[in-house]
Amino acid sequence: MLEQVLRDIDQSHDASLNALKEFLAIPSISTSPEHKADCRRCAQWAANKLSAIGFAATARDTPGHPVVVAKNTHQPGRPTVLVYGHYDVQPPEPLDPWVSPPFEPTVRKTPDGHDAIYARGAVDDKGQTWAHMYALAMWQKHGGVPVNITFIIEGEEEVGSPNLAPFIAANKDELKCDVALVSDTQQFARGIPAITYGLRGLVYMEVKVTGADHDLHSGLYGGAVPNPANILCEILATLHDQSGKVMIENFYDGVIPLTAGERAEWKKLPFNDEKFFADLKLSSGFGEAGYSTIERKWARPTCDINGLTSGYQGPGAKTIIPSSASAKVSMRLVPNQDPKNIAEAFTRHIERVKSEKGWKGVKVEVHAHSSAPPALVPTDGPAVQCALKAMEIGFGEKPTLMREGGSIPIVSTFKSLLEVDTLLVGFGLPDDRIHSPNEKFDLDALFKGTRTLAALYALLGSLKT
Amino acid sequence: MLEQVLRDIDQSHDASLNALKEFLAIPSISTSPEHKADCRRCAQWAANKLSAIGFAATARDTPGHPVVVAKNTHQPGRPTVLVYGHYDVQPPEPLDPWVSPPFEPTVRKTPDGHDAIYARGAVDDKGQTWAHMYALAMWQKHGGVPVNITFIIEGEEEVGSPNLAPFIAANKDELKCDVALVSDTQQFARGIPAITYGLRGLVYMEVKVTGADHDLHSGLYGGAVPNPANILCEILATLHDQSGKVMIENFYDGVIPLTAGERAEWKKLPFNDEKFFADLKLSSGFGEAGYSTIERKWARPTCDINGLTSGYQGPGAKTIIPSSASAKVSMRLVPNQDPKNIAEAFTRHIERVKSEKGWKGVKVEVHAHSSAPPALVPTDGPAVQCALKAMEIGFGEKPTLMREGGSIPIVSTFKSLLEVDTLLVGFGLPDDRIHSPNEKFDLDALFKGTRTLAALYALLGSLKT
Repeated sequence: MLEQVLRDIDQSHDASLNALKEFLAIPSISTSPEHKADCRRCAQWAANKLSAIGFAATARDTPGHPVVVAKNTHQPGRPTVLVYGHYDVQPPEPLDPWVSPPFEPTVRKTPDGHDAIYARGAVDDKGQTWAHMYALAMWQKHGGVPVNITFIIEGEEEVGSPNLAPFIAANKDELKCDVALVSDTQQFARGIPAITYGLRGLVYMEVKVTGADHDLHSGLYGGAVPNPANILCEILATLHDQSGKVMIENFYDGVIPLTAGERAEWKKLPFNDEKFFADLKLSSGFGEAGYSTIERKWARPTCDINGLTSGYQGPGAKTIIPSSASAKVSMRLVPNQDPKNIAEAFTRHIERVKSEKGWKGVKVEVHAHSSAPPALVPTDGPAVQCALKAMEIGFGEKPTLMREGGSIPIVSTFKSLLEVDTLLVGFGLPDDRIHSPNEKFDLDALFKGTRTLAALYALLGSLKT
Repeated sequence: MLEQVLRDIDQSHDASLNALKEFLAIPSISTSPEHKADCRRCAQWAANKLSAIGFAATARDTPGHPVVVAKNTHQPGRPTVLVYGHYDVQPPEPLDPWVSPPFEPTVRKTPDGHDAIYARGAVDDKGQTWAHMYALAMWQKHGGVPVNITFIIEGEEEVGSPNLAPFIAANKDELKCDVALVSDTQQFARGIPAITYGLRGLVYMEVKVTGADHDLHSGLYGGAVPNPANILCEILATLHDQSGKVMIENFYDGVIPLTAGERAEWKKLPFNDEKFFADLKLSSGFGEAGYSTIERKWARPTCDINGLTSGYQGPGAKTIIPSSASAKVSMRLVPNQDPKNIAEAFTRHIERVKSEKGWKGVKVEVHAHSSAPPALVPTDGPAVQCALKAMEIGFGEKPTLMREGGSIPIVSTFKSLLEVDTLLVGFGLPDDRIHSPNEKFDLDALFKGTRTLAALYALLGSLKT
């Protein structure tokens, strides 16, 4: 039966693509209050698609955007797979660099000649969520999906999933499963599909320095009043030493060192530093001394400023002492750093710097946004073996095992609330520009990914429960 | 004759105020192209007023807004005073906080009970320019102004006077004078009128750090690529040491130290640190160690960030490595720092930090915006003595000598092109909120200022040429 399903997938590219375009055209930007209705519309679109193929599907209310939950008819004796995707997307700004508008999905060639679909959310994560929906649809045409599926599609991944863990906690019985499956990761490169077994975590903070209650004339007041922008920069400059090491006390506590085996395996991967940085228009990389680029991305923690804002930012000159200055600062964590400990260590660091420097007259506030623990999945279990096999069927290439530098907080939520491991079977490519203008998804990755998932359902369905 | 002129000024407050309201009602915002016609109308209004009292007055074209030039009938053997004012104003935004609209001049009580006229430009500089125009008018009614006057009123002060120096250079003979007189400064406080004898200069720079050609996902790239925001903060943090001293090499070259006499005089001024900072909602001041607040504002150079911009600045979290980060940085200079040398020292400093830190893969650019030299007027000359005497006549109080932290670039233009010193005889108050909503000019300052100028013309007229 899998053969027929794969053939159907191969012979209906246009039908799949046309439906994906509908999905991508909905501006489901979760962070924007003005797109609240679009998020609901997007959830309903997905629920309708899954209802149409015979799933029991609903868009459920949460205090934020809805969660779609869909199940096929339960088949006793077969394992249950919890498939997770998200329908929300990052804001498209800045708009200028987009070649085609972010919510007018457009198929065109990539700069190096591959067909791809361009839109915000193309690969993160509507395109990959759609690969599941389409693989499920094809199985439903051929006697039904050969495994029990619970499909949840959330609408708040890009804002830190504030309502998902409570939703899962409140619906544990309904979401009970044997394994979770998430397609929100990448291949190692074109031609090297991959299963991801390690993810970095995240702690996202904001630091705000406040001085006078309004911007002051820099001539009349400069020199006599504290300048929040000067002080913010002095604070942030203490976060690293010259070798790129993070200088927050206790920051590296619990970090599992890379094994000699991992370092050796990763060295074998066809990774070209020069091309990697040239693609970003960088003359060189820069990072912690003593580690390769792949090691820095996959297995070392970071501390990066994500945004700075203070005072006058227009063209030309305005002579003011800003009333306040603030920075978004996030840290990527690796196993087994603890997000709560790191957030506390960061806050202590800022407070210590403030008290050591002796600035007067300013308020320094530290605020925590979202956080997510790092994850490391055991690679020797039967589910991972199914995934490797499915990927070989889907792509016609032997996949590799890799880690990823990004965070998928849901992985640790599944572990703690549902007590299951997560398979990370994703199809993105390093040049997909997720979160950036001109996000895309290679059509080859979309269709081979759909094949992989179709095969994976069958392989997981044959495992003993 | 001065007695009669002063009496006329005292007995015609309403006439003066009504004309000033016409002047203030014209929205002569020099930075806005849509107010170009208003600027011309404002220049013509001033030229007409001066023509009406018998001056040869015209609004002269420049590549930007017109300059008004007006002269009384030349009286051989008498000195010539070049009076300078500006008819252009800052934009009124933000509009919300204005109690009465910025271009509907309104007389009402200040929060502490003094009558004042509220409007954009009330004190900076239409009100003070008008004080000259009215004092001149009163003298013309009584036999003529007893000194040769060349009055220039420019329309581009708030945008850096790009066309004024070329205009002066092209009309040197016509503008030849013995002394310049500018009313665009402040009293020390209510009840303490002042002659300003020192101004700080300005060098305004921009620093931009550029990394990859687009914002990058901080999970996928963080740790392996240079972060322009991290690097910008590390650069800017090198500008000061912990005691507030500026660490740019050669920065303090040429700074004239405060004299023991100045420090002693300034200590006697009724200045309350606590009230000064409480008015700004600051718990404390902060600045260079070893100097008082007044010394820091008037006589010490500064280096202040005026604006920071990088990456994500909206609410919540966005996990990106910004493609670039930039800062506006300005330095207030004191006599005898040289703006050109300081701009070069700043640029060298940034380049040195970059090369010492060894960051890779980023471009660091330094760009110079405007600059203005500092100024220090000798206080022992006869013209300053006339100004002190005139102010005592005008206000009925002994004035003090003070410096100011702001810059008035025209002072050094007069020095270099016309080889004259400038008298800074201004009537503003520290709570006038120039460049901010609810700008005002105390009526007491307006009328006593007009008296002061009437007396000053007479005193300067009696000096030997």
